[in-house]
Amino acid sequence: MKAISIGLFGLGTVGSGVVNIIENHQDKLMHQVGCPVKIRKILVQDINKNRGVSVDPLLLTTNPNEILDDPDIDVIIEVMGGIVETKKNIIAALQNGKHVVTANKDLMALHGSELLTVASESGCDLYYEASVAGGIPIIRTLVDGLASDRIVKMMGIVNGTTNFILTKMSQEGKAYQSVLKEAQELGFAESDPTSDVEGLDAARKMTILATLGFSMKIDLEDVKVSGISNISEEDLQYGKQLGYTMKLIGHAHRDGEKVEVSVQPTLLSNRHPLASVNNEYNAIYVYGEAVGETMFYGPGAGSLPTATAIVSDLVAVMKNMRLGVNGKNAVTPQYPKILKDEAEKYSKYFLRLHVKDEVGVFAGITSIFAQYGVSFEKILQLPVKKNEVAEIVLVTHQAASSEYQNILTLLRDLSFVKEIKSTYRVEGSSVS
Amino acid sequence: MKAISIGLFGLGTVGSGVVNIIENHQDKLMHQVGCPVKIRKILVQDINKNRGVSVDPLLLTTNPNEILDDPDIDVIIEVMGGIVETKKNIIAALQNGKHVVTANKDLMALHGSELLTVASESGCDLYYEASVAGGIPIIRTLVDGLASDRIVKMMGIVNGTTNFILTKMSQEGKAYQSVLKEAQELGFAESDPTSDVEGLDAARKMTILATLGFSMKIDLEDVKVSGISNISEEDLQYGKQLGYTMKLIGHAHRDGEKVEVSVQPTLLSNRHPLASVNNEYNAIYVYGEAVGETMFYGPGAGSLPTATAIVSDLVAVMKNMRLGVNGKNAVTPQYPKILKDEAEKYSKYFLRLHVKDEVGVFAGITSIFAQYGVSFEKILQLPVKKNEVAEIVLVTHQAASSEYQNILTLLRDLSFVKEIKSTYRVEGSSVS
Repeated sequence: MKAISIGLFGLGTVGSGVVNIIENHQDKLMHQVGCPVKIRKILVQDINKNRGVSVDPLLLTTNPNEILDDPDIDVIIEVMGGIVETKKNIIAALQNGKHVVTANKDLMALHGSELLTVASESGCDLYYEASVAGGIPIIRTLVDGLASDRIVKMMGIVNGTTNFILTKMSQEGKAYQSVLKEAQELGFAESDPTSDVEGLDAARKMTILATLGFSMKIDLEDVKVSGISNISEEDLQYGKQLGYTMKLIGHAHRDGEKVEVSVQPTLLSNRHPLASVNNEYNAIYVYGEAVGETMFYGPGAGSLPTATAIVSDLVAVMKNMRLGVNGKNAVTPQYPKILKDEAEKYSKYFLRLHVKDEVGVFAGITSIFAQYGVSFEKILQLPVKKNEVAEIVLVTHQAASSEYQNILTLLRDLSFVKEIKSTYRVEGSSVS
Repeated sequence: MKAISIGLFGLGTVGSGVVNIIENHQDKLMHQVGCPVKIRKILVQDINKNRGVSVDPLLLTTNPNEILDDPDIDVIIEVMGGIVETKKNIIAALQNGKHVVTANKDLMALHGSELLTVASESGCDLYYEASVAGGIPIIRTLVDGLASDRIVKMMGIVNGTTNFILTKMSQEGKAYQSVLKEAQELGFAESDPTSDVEGLDAARKMTILATLGFSMKIDLEDVKVSGISNISEEDLQYGKQLGYTMKLIGHAHRDGEKVEVSVQPTLLSNRHPLASVNNEYNAIYVYGEAVGETMFYGPGAGSLPTATAIVSDLVAVMKNMRLGVNGKNAVTPQYPKILKDEAEKYSKYFLRLHVKDEVGVFAGITSIFAQYGVSFEKILQLPVKKNEVAEIVLVTHQAASSEYQNILTLLRDLSFVKEIKSTYRVEGSSVS
């Protein structure tokens, strides 16, 4: 039977993994799709660069058109990254009748619906399992595995770099900067870590997950983002003392027709299944109306895990080719996008304050919360620090975001409040 | 567009859940498959029984042929249980051109390959996601999500009853019998709990998982089974002290071409992702050559979680109907079955002994292990119990099962060994 020919865009870490799996698992692929799979051309930026994988140099090209215009290429695997040029190439590929498998989260978060429409109009498949949480088949799970359920909540640890940093800070009591440096040395963080540590990478992934899980076209700018670079060791230690673990969580919550999507450092109850997801691992917690609590755990990045997701997508595309049903799988969003406003977003909060050590301070603070009907789950009153400053740590019960912002403003205006040191979202009740 | 008609076999807990989801999620189903779905007939044993779900009494029948011979019924959902009669009905359905979705793990473990062959020959789909771990889409994950990888190890907490019992025993220090009674009162254990507590239920699920994960026809009798009814509070407490958590684990391990499948109480390192899976929850840990560690967590049973899996299968069948590609998805096993013999099964072991409290006992015991080259990871020497009996607890490094059995025989023959109290498989290194 005729081999299926692949054009590979990119031969970096993930591209090498793809070559590796296609070569080493040829038997399994052959068994599943009934024909051999071979890589016919690889687009690279520099033909002479030394690579971690041995490929026939004749396969390499620096000209995308050699792949896009090659009538013998059936499927394009895009692991090159980039947005503008890559989008152009993917559209050209689809319009030329080539199926596309991509790992490009930036592209899918920004232009996913447009690209899926082009694919569907061209009768081609566009699969993107590897764009979120590398080795975890979460896209399939949302599209197929939980197809019949109504998903009301997703919480994801979808960035390995920040999870590695927070795990080390928490377990070893080290400061953010020193752990970041260690992560960079180990290759878990980029030399410019902004996109990871400020939550932007996680926000792109949550855009993709929320769009699928809620069947609603969520845009990247709908995701409210804050990162981990200001988290102090004290915050982690107080969290621990109260029965919480700090994680950078991508939240996607639905109430009725309205949703909210955000990425923010969150103190999770130690009983929450995500609380024990450590180091560079990723996990996505999905709460469905019927199924209840589920969680999907695995490596979020890395050459082979990401390549596994890509080649599994490739298998799906090839099965569709065999059956002649490509381009029929994408489901368009079912609901119009309705975002919650701040008065509709409820959560518990952790708050750490520095106050003057004088009579009536505590009553002054609590009376402001009382004005808004917000009560407390936990209160830590701490011994006086130096310079007559006392530290107060509170965990509230559920409060609306708009009201909580008002409370913070009023607290800042109090003469005896020296500084609001930190505040975080809290999920779940701590282990008592 | 013409509605798709369902024949439902069984209207117990899960059947009611199916009716519930089909009714309440009609919009979502309609959006995904482009046509309404309706239940046309329901096979029950007693038409007059009072049920937790309201259905039109005219839908009920006690005669399976009213469903099997109804040309308007497209898909049969089987949630009735049973083996001989049910197998006959499912074969009749498939041969009549009806697709089948089943939650019947007993049937799939015993006759899965035969039924899948009939389905494929009849051009019909046979889906069975709900047969293993209720709400966790693990069948799909093995078949599609990890399609390109080579799975080398699966470890499953696939029985909620035993996980509930072990969690309670461990967390509350209660004895097996008293927790079993509590589980029965809460509806987490049957009045005859044998199939759950002796590991038979888990063995059926592991048969299904191993067959898929290893692409090898594993039979139920290949699975070596031991249950939890002899586990004592002492074993759990010693485990804890050593950094381990006791779980009933379904093991499926592959080395090269050979596999072993078993269900046995196992002391898991507290660092293992399965160690924190508590109460009635299920989880399957899958280690793939390329992807590395993954874990899938969720409810293992229950009306709505199981029904979610069934209706997701139904969605897949209906999508296939729309595309005209039913009966094409089953992949036959790729490899011949080769089981490891006892000399090829390696594991670490926990061993608890009662010995006479006299000089030379410890040296006598360790010299037997030394004969077989088996060394120790941990040793607990315990104060003398009453009647001059001392207790010794050991955790070995890796040892072959055949050698370990020889060691146990030799230990039993030693005059100063009073009793081998317990021994368990150990997985992972404890937290040091």
